[in-house]
Amino acid sequence: MFQQRIEHLRSICKEQQVDGFLISSASNIFYLSGFNRFLVDHDGYLLVTKSSVFLITSPLYTEAVRKFTPDLAILETSPDAWYSQMVKQIVDKEKLTVIGFEEKDLRVAEYFDLQEEKIATKSVSLRNLRVQKEQEEIKAVEKACLLTDKTFDYILPFVKEGVTELELSEKMSAFAKSQGAEIGFPSIVAFGRHSAVPHHMTSDEKLTKNSFVLFDFGLRADNYLSDMSRTVFFGTPSEHQVTLYETVKKSQEEAMKYISSSLLALSSEKETTNDEPQTTNQIDIFGKDVDDVARKVIENAGFPAYPHALGHGIGLEVHEAPTLSKYSPEKLIENMVFTIEPGIYLPELGGVRIEDMFVLQDNQLKQLTNSSKQLIILN
Amino acid sequence: MFQQRIEHLRSICKEQQVDGFLISSASNIFYLSGFNRFLVDHDGYLLVTKSSVFLITSPLYTEAVRKFTPDLAILETSPDAWYSQMVKQIVDKEKLTVIGFEEKDLRVAEYFDLQEEKIATKSVSLRNLRVQKEQEEIKAVEKACLLTDKTFDYILPFVKEGVTELELSEKMSAFAKSQGAEIGFPSIVAFGRHSAVPHHMTSDEKLTKNSFVLFDFGLRADNYLSDMSRTVFFGTPSEHQVTLYETVKKSQEEAMKYISSSLLALSSEKETTNDEPQTTNQIDIFGKDVDDVARKVIENAGFPAYPHALGHGIGLEVHEAPTLSKYSPEKLIENMVFTIEPGIYLPELGGVRIEDMFVLQDNQLKQLTNSSKQLIILN
Repeated sequence: MFQQRIEHLRSICKEQQVDGFLISSASNIFYLSGFNRFLVDHDGYLLVTKSSVFLITSPLYTEAVRKFTPDLAILETSPDAWYSQMVKQIVDKEKLTVIGFEEKDLRVAEYFDLQEEKIATKSVSLRNLRVQKEQEEIKAVEKACLLTDKTFDYILPFVKEGVTELELSEKMSAFAKSQGAEIGFPSIVAFGRHSAVPHHMTSDEKLTKNSFVLFDFGLRADNYLSDMSRTVFFGTPSEHQVTLYETVKKSQEEAMKYISSSLLALSSEKETTNDEPQTTNQIDIFGKDVDDVARKVIENAGFPAYPHALGHGIGLEVHEAPTLSKYSPEKLIENMVFTIEPGIYLPELGGVRIEDMFVLQDNQLKQLTNSSKQLIILN
Repeated sequence: MFQQRIEHLRSICKEQQVDGFLISSASNIFYLSGFNRFLVDHDGYLLVTKSSVFLITSPLYTEAVRKFTPDLAILETSPDAWYSQMVKQIVDKEKLTVIGFEEKDLRVAEYFDLQEEKIATKSVSLRNLRVQKEQEEIKAVEKACLLTDKTFDYILPFVKEGVTELELSEKMSAFAKSQGAEIGFPSIVAFGRHSAVPHHMTSDEKLTKNSFVLFDFGLRADNYLSDMSRTVFFGTPSEHQVTLYETVKKSQEEAMKYISSSLLALSSEKETTNDEPQTTNQIDIFGKDVDDVARKVIENAGFPAYPHALGHGIGLEVHEAPTLSKYSPEKLIENMVFTIEPGIYLPELGGVRIEDMFVLQDNQLKQLTNSSKQLIILN
């Protein structure tokens, strides 16, 4: 598995005309080597060249590497031989001309260190390295999604007058633990006017009657993440609040339909032009077009559209490629895992967001989180 | 409080000949503005100039800023005006010539963004910005330390045959929560041979008789951190294991004595030369000298000295200035908060580390964690 991923990286290196790559991000080090035991970010780096793969780190990690990733070659740093000097040694030994680095992750101080060693570098985007998930990765994501649905089922009976956002959030964390998983990022639990703040920080606000209750949370299971939002109503919603909810629901449905019908059109097109090889690259569904479909449903109903992207890829990180937004030129292709999460946020009425996770698999859009999307009214 | 800290930053700017500073690290943004509500690192930046302070961030955070730090001026980014373009606007408006940045935190991509806007930049270390703690900060640290002692008292009765490292670690987390705090970083709980791995990752290892049990953990209370290590013995220690423990204990004691007696010598020196103003800068206790004292106790007893620093500053981050290590030229001065944590790690016998937190206050070394350091033997 790691060998295949390393070869994928090497193909990117070849394409980008670099003959080595200094991987610094924790998620890519884990993806390419299986090692995820650094106590502090940037306590180690993965150096991948045409012929070798090294983990450059302090001797303090040697035992952990030997235990958890015994096949991984280690280059130990010391106070007299910093990581950049170790990189330089390999650059000289393997006669590398230029090495790639992750500009969104590498710190400027590290960049200066490499320059000081006179190592030629090139910023190379690894945005697409993990974008098409392997079957094992999809299984892990599915597990996280299943537990997310279970957590939502678990929490609903606790939605009662006087409970606080933080109490619900903590109960969700405890439940996730009891299921052998953990909460993947700080849960958003937002009551009433708080639900109209897309990035609300869960607080000690108490639940009062006639409020939306917005949950946005995810779990981490076997290292992979889920992300789901549901909005329920506590009390009796006004007609306008019901319309608001139904509009968001329709917005998500139309986005899903757009993807599914595009896939269908594309697959029938393929059948008729049978002489072409069936590659997933032929599916031309652009993130920005899906966002546009969802956004228009909301705007046409007379509401302001969501001030965020419609969706994002997810896997080892909560936000990764692809992006489904106004500005995203990215295409949706086979084995991508992403969210679709339209919302409407009105300070006077409250906010609604509905978010599910999906995978594009076997030329179909499959929904991975499956909690009910009917407006749940609790009393 | 923030005004005073901003003025401190401005004095650093003046000294370093920059007329603005782009603060990117979460801890310094919080320290200088009180805002710590970013869901994702680098979702915003603080721009400090001679005459103004701005938080540059997405409109998604506007509500949170208004709620939690209402006095803080916001510059909202948009898809058409990135943070680097907002910085450029201020640079032009205030006619700034060169702005400082945190090279250990800023990502290379961000550095390139600034270059693209033709903003002149200079790397300026803020290592000493937070190094001398204010009285309110010391109070928060003291609270975290007190709860750390309570957590240690709480966990000892659970040290029993068959318990796992993770079970103890989780009980500690739950207890911290019950006290209105939280665990500050992943706790190390290490049984037997695991205790000889300084960076051991707490595992599902079960406790068996005649093992060292090493705890290294800290709490976060009111945003400030604590960090303490204790090693107890489960079963009956061999004579050699007792010697090992006592050597570490003595190593820490000698380091403490070295600091205290230096302070005493310095203060009496001050009394005799009464004409000089009493500034804390006159205390010349170097981190490397303290490390040397502690290290020698261990080496003189015939053991290998710890493969890490003797200690580190702590506050908003687990590791911050000052460093007490072989390589550290830093002086210990008034109102610094730091750890002293010698250790011996022997695969065959196990490992021992004793770590406490201290503050240098009123010309005295005050210990902030106060759990017993007698060898605790449990059965």
